[in-house]
Amino acid sequence: MVAVDLAQRVLAGDRLALARTLTQVENGTEEGQLVLNQLFPHTGKAHLVGITGASGTGKSSLVNQLVRHYRKPDPGETSKQVAIVAVDPTSPFSGGAILGDRIRMRDLAGDPGVFIRSMATRGSLGGIASATSALVQVLDAAGYELVLIETVGAGQSEVDIARLAHTTVVVEAPGLGDDIQAIKAGIMEIADVLVVNKADLQGVENTERALRSALNLSHPRPRRLLHHGRLETIDEESGSTHQGPMWQPPILRTIALDGTGIPGLSDAIASHRAFLESTGGWEERERWRLQTEFDLLLQNSLVENFLAGLPGDEYQQVLGALLERRISPLQAVAQLMDDAI
Amino acid sequence: MVAVDLAQRVLAGDRLALARTLTQVENGTEEGQLVLNQLFPHTGKAHLVGITGASGTGKSSLVNQLVRHYRKPDPGETSKQVAIVAVDPTSPFSGGAILGDRIRMRDLAGDPGVFIRSMATRGSLGGIASATSALVQVLDAAGYELVLIETVGAGQSEVDIARLAHTTVVVEAPGLGDDIQAIKAGIMEIADVLVVNKADLQGVENTERALRSALNLSHPRPRRLLHHGRLETIDEESGSTHQGPMWQPPILRTIALDGTGIPGLSDAIASHRAFLESTGGWEERERWRLQTEFDLLLQNSLVENFLAGLPGDEYQQVLGALLERRISPLQAVAQLMDDAI
Repeated sequence: MVAVDLAQRVLAGDRLALARTLTQVENGTEEGQLVLNQLFPHTGKAHLVGITGASGTGKSSLVNQLVRHYRKPDPGETSKQVAIVAVDPTSPFSGGAILGDRIRMRDLAGDPGVFIRSMATRGSLGGIASATSALVQVLDAAGYELVLIETVGAGQSEVDIARLAHTTVVVEAPGLGDDIQAIKAGIMEIADVLVVNKADLQGVENTERALRSALNLSHPRPRRLLHHGRLETIDEESGSTHQGPMWQPPILRTIALDGTGIPGLSDAIASHRAFLESTGGWEERERWRLQTEFDLLLQNSLVENFLAGLPGDEYQQVLGALLERRISPLQAVAQLMDDAI
Repeated sequence: MVAVDLAQRVLAGDRLALARTLTQVENGTEEGQLVLNQLFPHTGKAHLVGITGASGTGKSSLVNQLVRHYRKPDPGETSKQVAIVAVDPTSPFSGGAILGDRIRMRDLAGDPGVFIRSMATRGSLGGIASATSALVQVLDAAGYELVLIETVGAGQSEVDIARLAHTTVVVEAPGLGDDIQAIKAGIMEIADVLVVNKADLQGVENTERALRSALNLSHPRPRRLLHHGRLETIDEESGSTHQGPMWQPPILRTIALDGTGIPGLSDAIASHRAFLESTGGWEERERWRLQTEFDLLLQNSLVENFLAGLPGDEYQQVLGALLERRISPLQAVAQLMDDAI
């Protein structure tokens, strides 16, 4: 099929075309890239909500309840089209996510206003965050008003993925060993809404207290993906670039099993969007996301082209000389650059 | 002065030449780069020990005591030459580190076997981690057997700096608000030795317990600096590349004020080095460090050269088209690459 046709069908709401496009985009095929180019001008409307939390917090049930609420909201509110992208960067297999998917599929099956996708492959398009970003763009173009990006596990990848979102929800639960699992790598710094799920369990106050003090420890920081180099335009460490009114992340209690607190969570997510829109934060995050993706793709292309243009084992030879400390890192780079000319 | 002469003087133990070289290297001057090239073949001998912990943990006093111990060890052990590099990536000023420096200078002053340096500038050589790495190389070449890299504050930069070390020591103290500040962004994943300092204070058991459960939560991960792109050769998330025997990070109690536990800490650091050497971990970390630095410098050079070769506001124009969603990120990169040819 021609990419233009596929893109048209995605825009028209064809779920089969959407599924195919997501697969092509995820695999980084040429067709996927062409369709993505077609779809990209139609992006920028969806509210991207990252939902992250350790296993055992009941995060997936919470997401399900939230989707149900968006589909059948309180009287007077309109129902929303929702997509879920489930990513587990800690798992070497995609099995876990896919299993969760099937359970959810059964739960939300047959609702044309819901689309669920798990990341089945890794590392395509230069990193899991980039791959997730591309999938989210397709779903955005396809008209989903909310895209919930669900991630599992701690670590930099999770933070990078969460940073793709406009609104990041961090889910905790009482009694998971200690209260300290809350403070997963860097995640508190980008939390916009905090949820203590399973709020009927003992220890909910301790978990809340731990979250509150973690919040106080982590001062707000601007967002970025790149940690090094020329493209690093935002100064994360000083935290000094933050301007304008501050968002105070609320700490909410929910019980996903019976739906307690779900309308409140939905309200908090909507409030955060309204806050972003009224403060210019929405444009700022959009700009940041797109420029970061652009810089990353550019960087990857330059490195790839450069390495492809080198004779045979040139890189390995120079690296070998470096590892034997015959030449310094700077000399190694200079030598490669010379050889390429 | 000619770079070769300066390098010779550094190698001969001239402290003035060393101080000058460090300044030139930190500022990324051409002289600094030339001297670094001269010195680099003499690196690879020092044991690089990262020491990290929040303010209030008494980390600086601990480092002082440790240095004193290395200078005047127990009978039967030989005294070691020690350098300290103090880095505070969270501070927009270098004042804090320099103040700490002066206090320490007074404390350890006049000992020719000790050299103390704080990072006074930021962002040179493409990131604070790279700049720290270059300083450490100079001190390594200058013959310091131990280089203690002291970092403050949470965040990715601290983790990146800690990853430069062969051995990472994480310092905690009882009663700093909650016990949860232990779990600073990603740091537990790379901790080799854990210290509860101020162990005479109440709550030491709680802190130990918090550290132990944080350790159990953070499975070991291979080390890397780059999070994205073509150069990402090690798979952090799966954690599946780890091979061979595992190091079990010990949790030690110290009281820096009276020196309690310092010999034990010194022993744990030495044990970790012995472990690395006997398992091939030493070469692995050396290789990883050098290749990461090389890849990062190469990447930065390629991006810089490319951007410098673009006509005027080309980058901004293409970025503008992207932000208006007239072209996709992939199309934006393709357009820049075309325009550069």
